Amino acid sequence: MLERYGHGGDLRTAEEAFGIAADRFVDFSSNMNPLGPPPSVKPALHAYADLIGQYPDPAVRGLRRKLSELHNIDEHSIVIGNGAAELIDLVVRALQPKLTALAIPCFDEYRDAVRKIGGAIYEIKLSADNHFLLDGDSEKLFEIAETGVLFMLGSPNNPTGQLVEPGLIMKLLQEGAYVVVDEAFMDFVPEESRYSLIQEAARHERLFVIRSMTKFYSIPGIRLGYIVGKPRSLSGLRRLQVPWSVNSLAQLIGEAVLGEADFAGRTLAWLLKERPWLIAELEAVGCAVCPSAANYLLVRIPPELGMSASMLQLAVGKLGVLIRDASRFPGLNHSYIRVAVKQREQNELLVKALKQCFENTGNRGD
Amino acid sequence: MLERYGHGGDLRTAEEAFGIAADRFVDFSSNMNPLGPPPSVKPALHAYADLIGQYPDPAVRGLRRKLSELHNIDEHSIVIGNGAAELIDLVVRALQPKLTALAIPCFDEYRDAVRKIGGAIYEIKLSADNHFLLDGDSEKLFEIAETGVLFMLGSPNNPTGQLVEPGLIMKLLQEGAYVVVDEAFMDFVPEESRYSLIQEAARHERLFVIRSMTKFYSIPGIRLGYIVGKPRSLSGLRRLQVPWSVNSLAQLIGEAVLGEADFAGRTLAWLLKERPWLIAELEAVGCAVCPSAANYLLVRIPPELGMSASMLQLAVGKLGVLIRDASRFPGLNHSYIRVAVKQREQNELLVKALKQCFENTGNRGD
Repeated sequence: MLERYGHGGDLRTAEEAFGIAADRFVDFSSNMNPLGPPPSVKPALHAYADLIGQYPDPAVRGLRRKLSELHNIDEHSIVIGNGAAELIDLVVRALQPKLTALAIPCFDEYRDAVRKIGGAIYEIKLSADNHFLLDGDSEKLFEIAETGVLFMLGSPNNPTGQLVEPGLIMKLLQEGAYVVVDEAFMDFVPEESRYSLIQEAARHERLFVIRSMTKFYSIPGIRLGYIVGKPRSLSGLRRLQVPWSVNSLAQLIGEAVLGEADFAGRTLAWLLKERPWLIAELEAVGCAVCPSAANYLLVRIPPELGMSASMLQLAVGKLGVLIRDASRFPGLNHSYIRVAVKQREQNELLVKALKQCFENTGNRGD
Repeated sequence: MLERYGHGGDLRTAEEAFGIAADRFVDFSSNMNPLGPPPSVKPALHAYADLIGQYPDPAVRGLRRKLSELHNIDEHSIVIGNGAAELIDLVVRALQPKLTALAIPCFDEYRDAVRKIGGAIYEIKLSADNHFLLDGDSEKLFEIAETGVLFMLGSPNNPTGQLVEPGLIMKLLQEGAYVVVDEAFMDFVPEESRYSLIQEAARHERLFVIRSMTKFYSIPGIRLGYIVGKPRSLSGLRRLQVPWSVNSLAQLIGEAVLGEADFAGRTLAWLLKERPWLIAELEAVGCAVCPSAANYLLVRIPPELGMSASMLQLAVGKLGVLIRDASRFPGLNHSYIRVAVKQREQNELLVKALKQCFENTGNRGD
């Protein structure tokens, strides 16, 4: 069970589980951009030797300024966090919602954050038949919105990869709801400007958008994310945040990578080519793949094999390939895995490992 | 006002206030070991280029193992934090004390953490006449201990530099109190084994010790601290901590610096020599200095000058020297500053800057 601490990408647990050195795994269980980190990261790391002895800027002024220029919003509409995970926790603690609506399956941390404040959860069950799309025609959705509930929605959603229609979110707001949109993977979407709600969040007092900088730039080690909201709406969150929460390397590298236009272009081109290839290969070995706008895929393994996601995780793990057991997401049964899209050579290893495990199981079943 | 974000060491605010580049200041306002960072930090930074693309170990296993060997306590008695600041916040949120006793003046973050949970504060006023020592003969102390209050005590205390007698803390525990001892500067104390309560904290369910790793090793940029308690007593805190709160560079460097025996020896030797020198020089220009076990000094500026700490901070700041306006600590009047002990050459600059400002003020007064 690789999700011992609730998430993918845990190479230490993989090492303990499979007796293979952490750096030998091909890791499809976390969703990092395989083209990264971008070139500006190494010089920033070297320059950092002269900065490590100083406290981080408690107000993260340099990075907020750059982000405000990038998104054309006020600097005070942005709070930087020690990873998006900290901001999910902070926004829930600041808002103290009595009831929070989650469209499941979704990222575990929403539920954990709500649980920590003792809030109740309303589950909107996304349907596999509808490719896990959030249904904008649901009467129910708007009924609960009227009660001032908090919606926490991933767009693209994790683990499904599906976007949420911005119009639907604006309608929920009109009905009186609070909405936190987790756009941790939005920079992988070429039509980002059509789907992102950052501009709206800077203006609307009940809307917040959370961004991660660690997926697209492949720097999860340093922890970096930000939240956008109306300056006044962010004050509670700012008050709760621990001083110097954002380390100074994260601030330095965050500023450096924002200028990486070439890296961004190459990333979008890679994903446009590699995602359909991987989907086709997975379908060719009998998997069903949810349409994804992101750099990961929710995959249903062939039911006729009678193989659970946890069995498959164990089997490919022994081959040095890590996948996410997605059956651990509430709302998904035991036949779902989640895999990152990586570079061709690695994707081939994944397909090969899956094939081998499927064949072994099929043969045993004969 | 350099403490715009509540603390010293804020070079960006200094830059804005004095129009001098951040890297040109001699900074006595934050308490870093001037000998650091130790030699192992640079190679660790270079090695980090290969690790930044992986998630941090969510359980911080490597560093906890090393610390458990160092202190000879159970690995499960340790939780690593995103700086000591995160652990102060977490332990208060986990314990939810109705009443918290603070010996003032003390580190601001204790009060902030209590305020965030809506708890009440009982102030024990330390007296300048008694060199700000916590008085173990006070009946009052044990009366409130009986009510199950939480004591948050710095040892050495910030900003005074005074140690708390371990026997006094054990008595408070016997009376029924909860105690959090902030030992952020304890590694600067040569008789650490006599004064630290780490061993006791690993055994006693109402005692917690917080350590910082960033002061002694001069690595405040990366954020790193830990808390020691009984494993069961730490469970609430662990539940509240955000995943991957401790970035992987902090974990890597934390492991590297623990082996720096030579650096530690040189640091203790430097402090033993430089602290008395600086105290004597400050007294020679008319200041009163609180006896300190740490690498910083609480200093009362000569009252006859009629100069406030904030005026002095402004005056020396213009000369490129940053000091802490300690009058911002509740319990201290406008005549207190706090300065770090640095290397001789820098300490001379401090003394020279103070002299110059005192003389200018004295002349104006004629």
